[in-house]
Amino acid sequence: MTPTQKPAPAATRPLNVAIVPDSFKGSARASEVASALAGGFAKGAASRKRDVEITAVPFADGGEGTLEALIDAWGTEAISVQTTDALGRPVASRLGLSADGKIAVVEAAEAAGLPQVSDVERRPLEATTYGLGALVSRALELGVSQIILCLGGSATTDGGTGLLAALGASFLDADGAKLPAGGGVLQNLASIDVSGLDPRAANVQWQIACDVTNPLLGAKGAAAVFGPQKGASQEQVQLLDAGLARLADVLEADTGRKLREQPGMGAAGGLAISLGSYFQVDLVPGWDLVAKVLGAHGILEGADLVLTGEGRLDSQSLDGKVVSGVLQAAGENAEVIVVAGSVDLTDEQLEESGILAAYSIAPGPATLAELSAQTPSLVERTAFSVARTYLR
Amino acid sequence: MTPTQKPAPAATRPLNVAIVPDSFKGSARASEVASALAGGFAKGAASRKRDVEITAVPFADGGEGTLEALIDAWGTEAISVQTTDALGRPVASRLGLSADGKIAVVEAAEAAGLPQVSDVERRPLEATTYGLGALVSRALELGVSQIILCLGGSATTDGGTGLLAALGASFLDADGAKLPAGGGVLQNLASIDVSGLDPRAANVQWQIACDVTNPLLGAKGAAAVFGPQKGASQEQVQLLDAGLARLADVLEADTGRKLREQPGMGAAGGLAISLGSYFQVDLVPGWDLVAKVLGAHGILEGADLVLTGEGRLDSQSLDGKVVSGVLQAAGENAEVIVVAGSVDLTDEQLEESGILAAYSIAPGPATLAELSAQTPSLVERTAFSVARTYLR
Repeated sequence: MTPTQKPAPAATRPLNVAIVPDSFKGSARASEVASALAGGFAKGAASRKRDVEITAVPFADGGEGTLEALIDAWGTEAISVQTTDALGRPVASRLGLSADGKIAVVEAAEAAGLPQVSDVERRPLEATTYGLGALVSRALELGVSQIILCLGGSATTDGGTGLLAALGASFLDADGAKLPAGGGVLQNLASIDVSGLDPRAANVQWQIACDVTNPLLGAKGAAAVFGPQKGASQEQVQLLDAGLARLADVLEADTGRKLREQPGMGAAGGLAISLGSYFQVDLVPGWDLVAKVLGAHGILEGADLVLTGEGRLDSQSLDGKVVSGVLQAAGENAEVIVVAGSVDLTDEQLEESGILAAYSIAPGPATLAELSAQTPSLVERTAFSVARTYLR
Repeated sequence: MTPTQKPAPAATRPLNVAIVPDSFKGSARASEVASALAGGFAKGAASRKRDVEITAVPFADGGEGTLEALIDAWGTEAISVQTTDALGRPVASRLGLSADGKIAVVEAAEAAGLPQVSDVERRPLEATTYGLGALVSRALELGVSQIILCLGGSATTDGGTGLLAALGASFLDADGAKLPAGGGVLQNLASIDVSGLDPRAANVQWQIACDVTNPLLGAKGAAAVFGPQKGASQEQVQLLDAGLARLADVLEADTGRKLREQPGMGAAGGLAISLGSYFQVDLVPGWDLVAKVLGAHGILEGADLVLTGEGRLDSQSLDGKVVSGVLQAAGENAEVIVVAGSVDLTDEQLEESGILAAYSIAPGPATLAELSAQTPSLVERTAFSVARTYLR
């Protein structure tokens, strides 16, 4: 902002309040939290006869809840798509579409996620992103020009081969036979046949929300770091890492693109290595991607006060989550107050992070279930008191 | 305050902050809460580089916790006195003494209280204030010139006859025999022999902290209203009411003082009727009495911001408790923020009461025991965020 664009001092104009909360996971959608914060703050301001200008948008960090935040902001409904989970079993997954039909959003956690396969023993070698590819394929059928793919929460370590197979590619062994699904067989990969690849996939803008900077392979790679939480033993980790290495070799030979060292290629079981080899993809921090799509950067930069929130405010919140994004994107003079289900930061952490103040919505002794059951009303009353305290 | 005494506007002098919390019953003494609020607020103000002047005193409403609040403010230790409980069993009770030794404070809840006799079946006819009298007697021996007697929490309906008996009076039947303890036998009262009454009792200033306005007798009297919670059946209520009526008759005949209709005579089982007949006693709302003793009125009147707190903020808090006292005593332009263990008021109740804002110390889902175990540190961090929000 140049000096000539400097706004009038706060005293002579209404206080500009940006409300950009994450969801309270398992309790309330980001849009519900945003409405409750806006309602409570507006009521508190009115009770103090203070003039405020409130802009509220649901926010997300590219993880679980991102699809809901985006469709709520767009004012659209999720489209249910019959696809398969990471173990190939039928499952209904959601596809989000912007109001103009140009942007689609899908979550790896939905069609290739750990939660869907938590009812059986984990099978990290066989887990596949094929169902996620089917979801993407449906988005292409709808004629979108941009696809937002939210990584995080996946059960897979297949290098995105399942996703690409669903779009028409064939992963073949030395005999020219199609490999079965999963990362466990990728060591046998000899060639990739992309003659059947959906041509529309090359013409969309791929935006991948990705919060980790791990490379594809090695000690900091997809298999070693994230394999164990997907159920992989040490032996299986080595098998998966070798498979991803073989995949990278074949992809590089075919396309000339060397991506294995690129930060983020280790996310979601190496999902981006296949996509990125054939298409132009952007790996973007989730909160930043969501902020760009929703125009939150502008809202945050112009705010005097930012209210944000999430289910649990702790040291992780300061690292790649919505709150850290808000702190980064907020204007230099903006103050940031956090309303959360639970607050687990010391005063020193608060101060160092740049958060002005943090409040839990808990009205007293209560279980998580009790707080979850009335999250919006508890958020609203907390915002009411915060407004009255701030606007003295 | 006359116009000439008007202080400089807040902008040109440090913000004047009065901190006057109640105890969080069962979790933290008022003095601990006051220290935590002061510490957290001062830390928050320092982190914002704001100049504030903080005055903190523990507060109380004349009920449980009043003795602790007073001795903590005085900087003295409670004196343990071996006396008897409401059923005549040995019990150690506390006596508080001001630093100059001139003021004593005792609580009816201690030596004639329900909690001490909750281990056995309640015996409302026999329950006596004799032990409380023994405590008072000890205070007289120590040479005090003022006794603060906190009613509330008593198990007794004896019209204060036990207390007076402990000071040397004899309650006699028609045959001149001493009546046994308790309100159940007062119907047989024929005369009172005060020849043995401790003469020092007439020379001290009696201040009785009393939050109810019930008269001694009838449908709104001591037996009818408070008897049932002390275990009295409907028949026993009638017996106790008749006993208190007989006591009032004899006292009036002896002293010429007609006190039975006076508001507050129905408190603590009619305790004040005997005392007030022979001595000059002041019945004062508890919070007001405590405020006078601790000089809190002056502190509150001069404050720009008042921080108070209690274990549970609910509609009862607005009726004779510390918070309502603070709201009454605070200067017209002072703002009042409440920090509580739990907050159970609607936004409308908050606004109507004159409370600026209310915050629970709960940092998220937690049991009462978990909150109790760390009350001071939770109070402190809440005050830290409140200071940073208020002092923007």
